[in-house]
Amino acid sequence: MNANDPQFALSCPIPVSDYPTVLLAHGGGGKLMHQLIEKMFVTAFANPLLESRHDGAVINLLRKDERGPFRLAFTTDSYVVHPLFFPGGDIATLAINGTVNDLAMCGARPMYLSAGFILEEGLPMETLWRVVQSMRQAADAAGVQVVTGDTKVVDRGKGDGIFINTAGVGMVEHELGISPANVQPGDVLLLSGDIGRHGIAIMAVREGLEFESAIESDCAPLASLVLALLDAGIAVRCLRDLTRGGLASALVEISEAARLDIQIEETTIPVREDVQGACEILGFDPLYVANEGRFVAFISASDADRALTILRAHPLGTGACAIGNVSMVNDRSHPGLVTMKSKIGAIRIIDMMSGEQLPRIC
Amino acid sequence: MNANDPQFALSCPIPVSDYPTVLLAHGGGGKLMHQLIEKMFVTAFANPLLESRHDGAVINLLRKDERGPFRLAFTTDSYVVHPLFFPGGDIATLAINGTVNDLAMCGARPMYLSAGFILEEGLPMETLWRVVQSMRQAADAAGVQVVTGDTKVVDRGKGDGIFINTAGVGMVEHELGISPANVQPGDVLLLSGDIGRHGIAIMAVREGLEFESAIESDCAPLASLVLALLDAGIAVRCLRDLTRGGLASALVEISEAARLDIQIEETTIPVREDVQGACEILGFDPLYVANEGRFVAFISASDADRALTILRAHPLGTGACAIGNVSMVNDRSHPGLVTMKSKIGAIRIIDMMSGEQLPRIC
Repeated sequence: MNANDPQFALSCPIPVSDYPTVLLAHGGGGKLMHQLIEKMFVTAFANPLLESRHDGAVINLLRKDERGPFRLAFTTDSYVVHPLFFPGGDIATLAINGTVNDLAMCGARPMYLSAGFILEEGLPMETLWRVVQSMRQAADAAGVQVVTGDTKVVDRGKGDGIFINTAGVGMVEHELGISPANVQPGDVLLLSGDIGRHGIAIMAVREGLEFESAIESDCAPLASLVLALLDAGIAVRCLRDLTRGGLASALVEISEAARLDIQIEETTIPVREDVQGACEILGFDPLYVANEGRFVAFISASDADRALTILRAHPLGTGACAIGNVSMVNDRSHPGLVTMKSKIGAIRIIDMMSGEQLPRIC
Repeated sequence: MNANDPQFALSCPIPVSDYPTVLLAHGGGGKLMHQLIEKMFVTAFANPLLESRHDGAVINLLRKDERGPFRLAFTTDSYVVHPLFFPGGDIATLAINGTVNDLAMCGARPMYLSAGFILEEGLPMETLWRVVQSMRQAADAAGVQVVTGDTKVVDRGKGDGIFINTAGVGMVEHELGISPANVQPGDVLLLSGDIGRHGIAIMAVREGLEFESAIESDCAPLASLVLALLDAGIAVRCLRDLTRGGLASALVEISEAARLDIQIEETTIPVREDVQGACEILGFDPLYVANEGRFVAFISASDADRALTILRAHPLGTGACAIGNVSMVNDRSHPGLVTMKSKIGAIRIIDMMSGEQLPRIC
């Protein structure tokens, strides 16, 4: 049976009158992407792992010998960033660190990665070699191995240099259930550092903007930082790395999935001065700008101070800070609201990003 | 550290004077792809799992509690087939069955798949829905679940409708070491059925060829057929599904990796009459044409008859047959040679495919 069969007449769950075709915004990390995932992918592939709406799936494997389940995290991302090389990273560092970070957000120790290359005919061979070498270095730095792969080549004009998919598996070596469903009222939100650098690094290259010193992507492997929390026995409720859609979209997704309200304070969220300046020039809100080395952790209030100390002691978490709290839903007409107290004290509702702010950022 | 660093001056392992850019043939399953994988990817990512040159990696995971290792297979493939829909299948059935089959070739029971979509802006939403529904049906038919995913959108003219990557994990529930390194002199080669249908089904659509009845792709999930062999305790030495590059390229790869000679007989290799006719019209050799539902099994001679009976009793193996044998290397100047006795009795050396016979076949 295949898609030529007549029974595929089932109607499309995205109203074709509104969206007859796929738009760039369907991959942008905001509302349209969220809708596509919820209405199409989660509907079609319906299963509890996918429905956990997490960065990856945590699988309980049972052995024949019934010595108890073996917990494995499994995740994937494709990388289509443009340009391939940018200050602070390249498509290769993204492809390794992005998937390593998704495993870390499951509370897993990342171990093995796959690499699938889709190359465009005419790509300079030396560019491919630079990318492959950079992947190896990034894999070494993150403590993972690329153990299986695939290469496809598409005709000129049917791709764009290099697209990379990586999938990853990691071991879950604790008993916590780290996911949006596990967030509790009273939990404290910790942010691992300043936001907005990755998105601005990419946009600055694309727009030819020059700053006193180049703004570098924050691209980094976060697993050792997360494992430091877990090894210390911190009651980690949920983790989410801030990629497309930025801090705002991540919080809205978790708030809706957890059916709880989230309050954050603008003054507590670190944004570097040069990043803030670039955001003003480009018309971006740093809350929605992509990151590749930052995450939020939802931590039981009683463990929050200790968790913050652990994060700040790690080179990738020196700028960590508490940015807000979780509470019961206040307005029952919403599945969960994110609000922010601004610098001047006003309360503003934070929504998911609409439209496409920064296409092909990762 | 990233690819902008000066230490990336290490010279490119593919001679740039010969191949300044990536060619379609680098993804075609033949000599150039083999060279790219060996010289670039295996060199850069050097590790024993990758060096096993198998369809996927078989990982021994160790638990903290030291209750012995847990064996997991892990594999990936990207799918860029053109056109998206063809007789007997579509990109979705390929994306599920291709990865299921790579896990099966590791002797694993396929369990969980990831799905990474790279969509081109402007793709009709209903086409995406057809594809996603077909993936779900194919996953159900193969007994696997899609548990994690990712969506990226690239601008119009930078992709080609839909590219899909799937990665898969499966459990290895036996103690065999199924890989080219395990092939022994005296082993018998079994082929699971007739060859060449997938490649010809695609080419017929592209070229607008019409036959009395459409030639359908052989695309199918092979795990239950492989597990039937394993469950019966057959001494399976190596398995390989026949995809890009066809039967010939698969045998040459295994022969070189195993450092053993392989002899096959042309008269024993089933090719349907309509496929043979289409090959003659299009100028193809069926030995090099892609399949998506066929594999070769290297079986200990003492188990070969029993294995053949098991294969033939399965709906996907009714056309199974013994096509040849393995022997010690005869000519020490070669790492392993594949030879075929032709219909008229002449012995011909079978080489890996050169150039690009059928681009974007999967």
